[in-house]
Amino acid sequence: MVQKGQITFYSHPASVYSHRVEIALKEAKADYTNYEVDLANKPSWYAARVNPVGKLPAITYGGPNTAPDDPSPEAAKINESLIILEFLADIFPEAHLLPSDPVLRAQARMFIVATDSLLYDVFWAFFFHYSPGADQTLLNLLESVQERLHPTGFAIGKWSNADIAVAPFLFRFRAMLRHDLGSFPVGEGTRVYEILQGPKFARLMKYIDDIEQWPSFKATWDEVRPVFM
Amino acid sequence: MVQKGQITFYSHPASVYSHRVEIALKEAKADYTNYEVDLANKPSWYAARVNPVGKLPAITYGGPNTAPDDPSPEAAKINESLIILEFLADIFPEAHLLPSDPVLRAQARMFIVATDSLLYDVFWAFFFHYSPGADQTLLNLLESVQERLHPTGFAIGKWSNADIAVAPFLFRFRAMLRHDLGSFPVGEGTRVYEILQGPKFARLMKYIDDIEQWPSFKATWDEVRPVFM
Repeated sequence: MVQKGQITFYSHPASVYSHRVEIALKEAKADYTNYEVDLANKPSWYAARVNPVGKLPAITYGGPNTAPDDPSPEAAKINESLIILEFLADIFPEAHLLPSDPVLRAQARMFIVATDSLLYDVFWAFFFHYSPGADQTLLNLLESVQERLHPTGFAIGKWSNADIAVAPFLFRFRAMLRHDLGSFPVGEGTRVYEILQGPKFARLMKYIDDIEQWPSFKATWDEVRPVFM
Repeated sequence: MVQKGQITFYSHPASVYSHRVEIALKEAKADYTNYEVDLANKPSWYAARVNPVGKLPAITYGGPNTAPDDPSPEAAKINESLIILEFLADIFPEAHLLPSDPVLRAQARMFIVATDSLLYDVFWAFFFHYSPGADQTLLNLLESVQERLHPTGFAIGKWSNADIAVAPFLFRFRAMLRHDLGSFPVGEGTRVYEILQGPKFARLMKYIDDIEQWPSFKATWDEVRPVFM
């Protein structure tokens, strides 16, 4: 594998979107420098010289090797987790973050687009701003994710960016439900967790188990690490 | 150019998202069958056999040649305009809908993601549900689009999916402003149109003029055709 340029990864361990990029970097066996951005005290050079929007994650690619807190104007700056996943698929074709078949690539992208915004909204609504009915919204979303899964294996059959996009959410859901962690009434998390163990969600749970065993995911996930954001 | 499978394009001439796909198909010189879906009387087979969400545009790709209103189960079904643009870039690499350089590809995608949802929201808010202040929101959006443009040429320099994604909105904006067409008070459209002719928006207007001359766009745009949606 030939990686043409340096990669610096601006991330935070609690960021669900950073997590996506971390999995993809591991999957690609990329050579990269991780730089954890202090969210409480975001350095001013970050927005000025890496991501004007100030959000995580971002990467720099190419240019001279400089310290992460001194990014080169010559390095390309790429932000938005899903765009970084596409970029990594482009520069590491042998990692098959996207399949080579155009129809399967489209299927991976359709899976991502159909689930992406809902995952975040429901995550927020159930775990951080709970109101009655949010449990059913969460279960409906998980059912719709399940319905979109290939009958066996990963989201589109083989492992791809589709799994990398959805996994950071699914594992935060599972961890927070299991530990009854969230803004909902005590016991509501474990109650929903129990529902997910039933036959109705068997395909989804098998999918989550399969992801948990996948090396690039395994290398990035520890349920005791911060799971918020 | 070798196109491997049949393409059927489910569209509507008034749909801004269909317009994107139409431009990309022309740019790729694709061989395709256009099928105009009757939005007032959407045929039941459309959601059942093409796009479960029922929305336009969609394409089918490959499989046997069947009539558009009898899509084959063997054909791949692809929906969401931006995913179709990626798909067409994948199957027509020689059309350069996306550049071959991964960094430029990422730049095209960042341009699209940064503008996509805002374009629709502002389109809706200014032209269809006008309320005071919507003019400034529209002007702010257009200024932010302008700021993202490459200093010369198209959005990222060379013509790409970035232009194809934004053009259908920009030309509807321009046409509706010029003809003072929208839910705003009489004269508000032409007033905003005049502001856009000033020096502040010179780069954006040059960009719009350049798009207007680009063959694949030109082949799809007639200001007197319906410009709504």
